[in-house]
Amino acid sequence: MTELRQGPIGDRWVIVAPMRGRRPSDLVTVGKESTELSSDDCPFCPGNEDKTPPEIYRVSNPDGSWQVRVVPNKFPALSDDYRGLEQADAGGFYQRMNGLGTHEVIIENPDHEKGIPDLPLKSVETLIDTFAVRLQKLKQDDRYRYILLFENHGKAAGASLSHPHAQIIGIPIVPQAVMSELRQAHSYYEDKKNCLFCDLLKNELRSRERLIEETDEYVVFAPYASCFPFEITIMPKEHVHDFTEISQGQRREFAVILKRTLHRLKEVLNDPPYNLMMKSAPNVSEGSGNQDCFSAMQDSYHWRVEIVPRITVMAGLELATGLYVNPVPPEEAARYLKEAGN
Amino acid sequence: MTELRQGPIGDRWVIVAPMRGRRPSDLVTVGKESTELSSDDCPFCPGNEDKTPPEIYRVSNPDGSWQVRVVPNKFPALSDDYRGLEQADAGGFYQRMNGLGTHEVIIENPDHEKGIPDLPLKSVETLIDTFAVRLQKLKQDDRYRYILLFENHGKAAGASLSHPHAQIIGIPIVPQAVMSELRQAHSYYEDKKNCLFCDLLKNELRSRERLIEETDEYVVFAPYASCFPFEITIMPKEHVHDFTEISQGQRREFAVILKRTLHRLKEVLNDPPYNLMMKSAPNVSEGSGNQDCFSAMQDSYHWRVEIVPRITVMAGLELATGLYVNPVPPEEAARYLKEAGN
Repeated sequence: MTELRQGPIGDRWVIVAPMRGRRPSDLVTVGKESTELSSDDCPFCPGNEDKTPPEIYRVSNPDGSWQVRVVPNKFPALSDDYRGLEQADAGGFYQRMNGLGTHEVIIENPDHEKGIPDLPLKSVETLIDTFAVRLQKLKQDDRYRYILLFENHGKAAGASLSHPHAQIIGIPIVPQAVMSELRQAHSYYEDKKNCLFCDLLKNELRSRERLIEETDEYVVFAPYASCFPFEITIMPKEHVHDFTEISQGQRREFAVILKRTLHRLKEVLNDPPYNLMMKSAPNVSEGSGNQDCFSAMQDSYHWRVEIVPRITVMAGLELATGLYVNPVPPEEAARYLKEAGN
Repeated sequence: MTELRQGPIGDRWVIVAPMRGRRPSDLVTVGKESTELSSDDCPFCPGNEDKTPPEIYRVSNPDGSWQVRVVPNKFPALSDDYRGLEQADAGGFYQRMNGLGTHEVIIENPDHEKGIPDLPLKSVETLIDTFAVRLQKLKQDDRYRYILLFENHGKAAGASLSHPHAQIIGIPIVPQAVMSELRQAHSYYEDKKNCLFCDLLKNELRSRERLIEETDEYVVFAPYASCFPFEITIMPKEHVHDFTEISQGQRREFAVILKRTLHRLKEVLNDPPYNLMMKSAPNVSEGSGNQDCFSAMQDSYHWRVEIVPRITVMAGLELATGLYVNPVPPEEAARYLKEAGN
């Protein structure tokens, strides 16, 4: 079983999820050749459905084959096999909780080689709809105070299997990094009576120097203080705090913009490893039981997708101070990415 | 010229340090074979002294050859070529500062192949003395509010050259991660009238389950909420906020314990990539001009060394939430590391 821990220095929680029966040297995989699974052995390829835990959800074709599958993570960081939160301190000095949570894998399409930029638009739409279905479902469980959808693409971005897949994790706390964003957005709203994120969009649309693309519903840009080279944000123009609350039309346009943006990145950096993160407000929707302290903050939040290419390495400076070194000014990154679409 | 940037979301500052004249594809080095320099080409090997910028400091042998060299970083993240801080906002929404700072490289010894665990104790002592000399020198410059000494070992930890070297960076701000530690330590002190770090040591020495080694002056342990597998902290027993203020005897013992601890790590994980970070309080010493707001906080700080093996990859979950997944409980890591010394 896993557990969540927090020490007295730094605000970070850690999921301690032991991989039983391994020797330390089994862990040393970084920098070694990855044992790339062929599609015969890949548990996410058609024909190998029995290699995953039992399916949670699927979108089927008329012939019965699948377009998208959702399965529990075989090695979950968190599990819902707990009756309650059972929070307890460890010796009066440390904080711990049972590793309550959920961890799902969304197999994006049957083709081992095809990611979002390569799929037909129709398939991307199906995938986005699946994201919405699963997120909506998990939001009904009030034990999950924060739900993150993310995609790790490539080994350097932490993907252990190369068959394109996304993950959803539901956790029993609102993590420090998210709380900090919420507090900033809330305090900005209190101060200026405007949404921080809406003002940021206005600012980017006015200056245009970091703009990659603008559509009716979305703005794609390289953030001013990008921590990573070629970092990209996709932000909706409409002020909505949660991805699951957007309209069907907005979802359709999101499929177009996500496919095109990932295509730009693939073209400019030759299919780089990346992390994609869909950030929505914490799960404090009506009926979730979590409404107490977060609902005011939730209103000042604004959902978005952040895409972070992993072509540089975080080193001692970044780990010790949180101060990142970015060798590519976002203005320059935006120019390359913008051109790539033409 | 480089600059420091901060956006309105998240507290992080970023150093934007453009590498001029490079194409995006030049950046994509992650996961590719490193072009390992032989010692003929290595700028840190004896005979190639003219390949580094002019030397700042050296420790020489009686025959005139060197034991340790300190040189400016050839590709500095920050530079002291600025007259002042010249802080300015960018369009009323973003914060920026000129990239004022200093970035030095300490070439740890002439031997391309030998790191701290392999060196004779005498050489490690010389290296530790050099750390102290350079840190003391940089602390006299009141433009540097925070000074970090760190070592990136191995490509996956961000080292671009394999010849063993440490780095010192002096920056014009106290980074968010450090401020957060300072605030926690200060608030703990206000509350309990004890040092947070001293109490943590007492706790670890009582429970002993994460203890790796205890000497007269130091405690080596695996932190309770380790974010990374086999993370190690070396903490002095005496409450001192800055490494440069320890006694000669404490420095000698630090050389012993550092060499032995890195040797344990090398043995257990077969020479893994790692980041080593020496954390002291911000630079608010007398005469630095920075005494105003930090001196009370400084008193509640406690210097230490953190060593983080880089055998796992930070992925979307970690980047989006700051919530880390650690597959090795620190209690188990401590057992392996403790045995390795025997």
